[in-house]
Parts: sequence; structure tokens; C-alpha cells
Amino acid sequence: MARELFSTVQDQRDNVLSNRVADQINQLILDRDLKAGDRLPNEYELCEELNVGRGTLREAVKLLVARNCLEIRRGIGTFVAEKTGQIEDPLGFNYVEDKVQLAKNLMEIRLRLEPWVAALAAERIQEEEKAELINLCNELENEIRNGRDHGPLDKKYHTYIAKCSHNSVMPELIPIITYSVDMFTKLRDPKLLATTIQTHRAIADAICRNDTVSAEKCMREHILANEDGLSQMDTLIAPIRRTDLQ
Amino acid sequence: MARELFSTVQDQRDNVLSNRVADQINQLILDRDLKAGDRLPNEYELCEELNVGRGTLREAVKLLVARNCLEIRRGIGTFVAEKTGQIEDPLGFNYVEDKVQLAKNLMEIRLRLEPWVAALAAERIQEEEKAELINLCNELENEIRNGRDHGPLDKKYHTYIAKCSHNSVMPELIPIITYSVDMFTKLRDPKLLATTIQTHRAIADAICRNDTVSAEKCMREHILANEDGLSQMDTLIAPIRRTDLQ
Repeated sequence: MARELFSTVQDQRDNVLSNRVADQINQLILDRDLKAGDRLPNEYELCEELNVGRGTLREAVKLLVARNCLEIRRGIGTFVAEKTGQIEDPLGFNYVEDKVQLAKNLMEIRLRLEPWVAALAAERIQEEEKAELINLCNELENEIRNGRDHGPLDKKYHTYIAKCSHNSVMPELIPIITYSVDMFTKLRDPKLLATTIQTHRAIADAICRNDTVSAEKCMREHILANEDGLSQMDTLIAPIRRTDLQ
Repeated sequence: MARELFSTVQDQRDNVLSNRVADQINQLILDRDLKAGDRLPNEYELCEELNVGRGTLREAVKLLVARNCLEIRRGIGTFVAEKTGQIEDPLGFNYVEDKVQLAKNLMEIRLRLEPWVAALAAERIQEEEKAELINLCNELENEIRNGRDHGPLDKKYHTYIAKCSHNSVMPELIPIITYSVDMFTKLRDPKLLATTIQTHRAIADAICRNDTVSAEKCMREHILANEDGLSQMDTLIAPIRRTDLQ
């Protein structure tokens, strides 16, 4: 029989140990009040401080890099990562098989949350944030008119609205529930694209003039337009593997 | 100057390579339609298939374990992890300094989402799920009456209600926004505990008799009671380090 991965007792001990040291490094980050972008003590100091060998330390650091807690800059040092501890696809949507059902479930949640977030943004947006919102709206329109995939900018736009709600959790939550936006941006249905440009613009305008009612209404219409796209998709994509779409 | 972690060009190449192989393993999981609990091919087969050496493969597997995509069972093999790709604290709340402000932001989102989720659960709960919901309610009451920390069960209860909404994303989302529940369960204010028992019960009863209006109303009252606790907390915890609370 071929040898299994990490099958020996020693392997397992090493794993347990590097996990424990990873926890200790996390505690050190909290205790010393290190922020994203701050530099960690060097290898020698860390080994001394945590009373571990270099091999274990390196394994622990790798774990924390995989979890986006630390970031290694070549030849410079090890730093606390930006958006510490947040990973892409934190809910493991990439592993969900039925991506259309997933998109429907996400849509239900978006319809509940995003119109409300738009209303909060209209209420709480700061003067200096308005220019950036309009700017994102312009960039997005450009991207669509030039026939490029506007998925990444689309998500950035929705996340920026969440930021304007001044609830710190919202800009972290919105990227999760807009996971399936790429399904629509890849559809390139001309009618859907035209609606996208127009509703994005209407939302931004409503938020900038602090019109909570209209912001909420426009966001709802925007998401409902996407939902229409979704019901077309059921028939459109039947012949292709659903896992091809994200 | 002390040597920095992973500072050589070779170190960096190894990192890039093991990340690429990790992506390939993920693709293999999707292609072969492997599910949580399914076993990965052994080390020898994987090295052959992906055309990499044993060292690189092991580094890639470690990355995927850190991200909860794979799980190693000692002496048995490597398996696709349960809740594939989902990690604890996916939004990095552990690293947020002002935990009270975080709790307030989460509360705002809970108030928007959870009463609605309770109404969905009342509408969509299956007959066979009702007993489990009542059972969780009983266990939770026991835990509180016995003076034990009911935080974990409290989260389980809210997550189970989310499961009864039959939107597959909801049971993943609720544990995120109930992150700060432990702040309240550690408070042990007798009045708050009595309210907790009573409102938990009222929610479960409403859901079980498919009463959407009452389920929504009771959940709102339950969360508002917690919010009251939160405003007390501002004065209560001023003298202690806020990072002590999660």
C-alpha cells in the first residue's frame, strides 16, 4: 500500500505543535496591538519568545499565511496581513455543486439586505465619499460599454455602498452575498446590461442626495432585474456543467 | 541582522509552487465530484497525477488543511473536510480591537436578518425538524438553569432556526453575525437570562405552529433584549480590556 500523507505519529505531533504556535502568534498580535501592515519580530526573536524551534515556527507562520493572518514580503520580513484573517470565499461556495440554486439562495438574502444597506448609506454617507461613489459608477459604465467583464468592479461598487453605511461588518458581508454576481456579468445579455448601467446610476444618485426611500427602491429594482436574469439562466445553462459558472 | 522568515528566493518559489498545487488539488476535488468525507487519492497517486514531488504535495496539503478544505486522519488518509473551505471566524473578528462597537454593528445586522429568518423558518420548517428545535430549546434552558456558559448552544439554536429556513446560505451566515453572542452569555445578568429562556421558547413555539408573524415579532424582541444588555455593557466593561471579550 502506498504511504499516506502525514500518517506517522511524528507528523501528527508536528501538526498539533504548529497549530499551537500559530495560536500563540495570534495572541502576540493581539497583545502587542499589531495592526494590518505591522511587522512581526524576526525569526530569532520569535523563536526565543515562544520557546520553539525554527522548523515549528516556520510551519506555524505558513498556517497563518494560508489563513491570511500573516503576509511574507520577500527579503523584508513577515507582516500582519491586510484584512487580517479574512479569506476569499470564506463560506466555501466554490465547493457548492448546484451554483444556480446557490445564486437563488444568495438572491433571497441580497433582496433582504442590500436595499436596506442602500438606505443606510443614503442616511450616513459622508460628503467626501460621494465623489468616489460616482467615480465607481462611471468606471463601471465604461467597463460595460467596452464589453469587458465588469464583475470585479460590480462587486467593488456594491461593497463601496456597504462601506458608506458606516457599519464595519457590512463591507465584509456584501462580498460574500454578491459571490454569484459573476454569473450575471458573464451572461452579457444586452438588455440586462443596459438595465445594470441605469439602475447602478439611479442608486448612486439617490444615495448622494441622501434620499433613503429612493435608494432602497432603486436597489430593490436592481436586484430584481438580476433575479429575472437568473430565471432565464435555468433554461440557458441546462446543457453546460453548472460548476463551470461561479 | 537576524534572518527573516522565508526570505530567500527559493522559499518564495516553494510558496508559489505549493499554492499552485493546492489550487490543482481543489480542481481535482471539483472534477471528481468529491464530497465532504470523501477520501483523496494517496500520496503516490497524487504526486503522479499532479506531476510534483512529495515535499511540494505535502506543503500544498498543509495549506488546504489550514483553510479547512482537507482533513488528515492519522494512519488512514486525507479526506475532503466537513464544511469544506469554511473556517472559524472567516471575517477576522478576533482581530477587531473594539469588540463593543463590533457587537453593536453585528446587532444592527441581526435585527435586520434574524426576525425575517425566523419568519421564513415558520413558513418552511419540515414536520420532522420541529422536535429537534424544541429539543435544542430544552437543552439551552437546562444549560442556563445549571449556571453553565450557554454560548455554544445559543449559537447552535440560532443556526438551527436558520437551517429551518431552507436557504442553504443562511446556516453559514448566522454563525458569523452571532459572533458576539458570547459577550452576552458571559454577562450572566439574571434578568437577561430569564428573558433569554422565555424569548427562546416563544420563538421556537411560534415557528413550530407555522406562525410567521409571531416568530418574527418574538425574534425581534429577543434580539432587542440583548441590545439592552449591550448598552449596559458600555459602562460595565469600561475597566476591562475589550479584547478579553469575544
